[in-house]
Amino acid sequence: MRRVAIFGVGLIGGSFALALRRAGFTGEITGVSSPQTIKAALAAGVIDRGADGDTAARECDFVYLSQPVLGIIRALEQYGAVFRNDAIVTDAGSTKAQIAETARAYVKKALFVGGHPMAGKERRGVQESDAALFEGRKYILTPLAEEHVGSSGFQTLSSWIEMMGAVPVILNADEHDRLVAYTSHVPQLLSTALASVLSEVEAADKVAGPAVLELTRLALSPFDVWYDIFSTNTANIQAALTDVTAKLESMKEQLKSEALGAEFARAAAAARKLREKEFD
Amino acid sequence: MRRVAIFGVGLIGGSFALALRRAGFTGEITGVSSPQTIKAALAAGVIDRGADGDTAARECDFVYLSQPVLGIIRALEQYGAVFRNDAIVTDAGSTKAQIAETARAYVKKALFVGGHPMAGKERRGVQESDAALFEGRKYILTPLAEEHVGSSGFQTLSSWIEMMGAVPVILNADEHDRLVAYTSHVPQLLSTALASVLSEVEAADKVAGPAVLELTRLALSPFDVWYDIFSTNTANIQAALTDVTAKLESMKEQLKSEALGAEFARAAAAARKLREKEFD
Repeated sequence: MRRVAIFGVGLIGGSFALALRRAGFTGEITGVSSPQTIKAALAAGVIDRGADGDTAARECDFVYLSQPVLGIIRALEQYGAVFRNDAIVTDAGSTKAQIAETARAYVKKALFVGGHPMAGKERRGVQESDAALFEGRKYILTPLAEEHVGSSGFQTLSSWIEMMGAVPVILNADEHDRLVAYTSHVPQLLSTALASVLSEVEAADKVAGPAVLELTRLALSPFDVWYDIFSTNTANIQAALTDVTAKLESMKEQLKSEALGAEFARAAAAARKLREKEFD
Repeated sequence: MRRVAIFGVGLIGGSFALALRRAGFTGEITGVSSPQTIKAALAAGVIDRGADGDTAARECDFVYLSQPVLGIIRALEQYGAVFRNDAIVTDAGSTKAQIAETARAYVKKALFVGGHPMAGKERRGVQESDAALFEGRKYILTPLAEEHVGSSGFQTLSSWIEMMGAVPVILNADEHDRLVAYTSHVPQLLSTALASVLSEVEAADKVAGPAVLELTRLALSPFDVWYDIFSTNTANIQAALTDVTAKLESMKEQLKSEALGAEFARAAAAARKLREKEFD
């Protein structure tokens, strides 16, 4: 692995570049992004040069697709047949099944391995790039086939991720999408729904305390990345939302009942378990 | 104000005692709690002495009821006629309407002013008491009648709250309860519902990132305080939950639509507004 291309040099792509450097990568890093992002990324020392997608796809032996999901899908369609036969192509998209399907159809010679780093920041953009962004975080890998896990390309990718301080977790793409509907997409929708309802509750700010601030923080997220996620994981999100609204309806009928205590106990146990397992 | 009684010397009652001291109160502070809490509160220097409720109610000219809501209601029923005619009686209960109703019926001579400090901590108990707990926080006051606001008792209470660094906000009890259903009680139920659903999603911990940890933190709360809250604010909570589940249902149908962007924009604006107003 000597020539790396980062498609979409934002927070994630820029951080991956910096993390690679910190982990000891000495090859060349090429950025593919808008001219103004390339300029900022060069100025910040995140990449070594900018190039167009076709050039980067032809020349590089490691390709990191870190656009929003629909941008990743478009790049796979466009460059899938261009990527080198010795290239490792991976992505950082928040949903994996439609990306996997696209990669199967369009990536002809290269090894494609889906990825999703469980890391982020409230602010986006290459100027927020952070070599330590992935440190201590899970990094989901969704190989297209089980036998890919044994390949040298997969091992190379997985090793770099470990050298960045992250923890690779192997899942299949469908299972990933089903799970993140519960752990990421529905939390976002709960926060947005609450904040949207609050927009119509006059004087709510008079009694706003830490609880509502915590529950509405995700609602500050801009819609643009979410549109891609919702439109590529619709059925899983709808199923998870149905589970949560059914639970809310049942709790609504139990408000005066000690039986709600059992729900609280179950929820507290699950919340504790998530915390124990966070850095497994 | 020379003799203060704290009924229920937990995190809030203990912090109120410490905050009073730090604000310059030099009189005596009496605690009314279980023997073991009194022992801990004396050892921590939070109170000067322990007493039974009847003695404290008879002797003190400032009474702070900081039990869970149903405990406050019981104390008002039991000591309402005992409180001195020059006493200021206030409480820190999380719901206000049923407490106000009880105070109207049982507090015979003293001035009663409902209260609700918008402050807390994850851990409870007198050992967590913190003189700075109310600093920079809103402190809701719900007088039983508008004319009480001009009384010297009300002014005394309000001044001490300001001297603690908190910001008094006057609301009526019904309005308070309607608003906190949206800003506190529904956020708790959303967090508990999500965590409870997650308890049945095997392997969810594999992809748990910051979003789900944030949204399930409230689910760690023990049920005992919440039982009192849900059972004394049932109708408001049901109405607020209905608003949120209706919003979720409508978002569920819009997942593939750009129209959801308008919902996100509205929600983000409301979330920002809550943050601007927090320390008004």
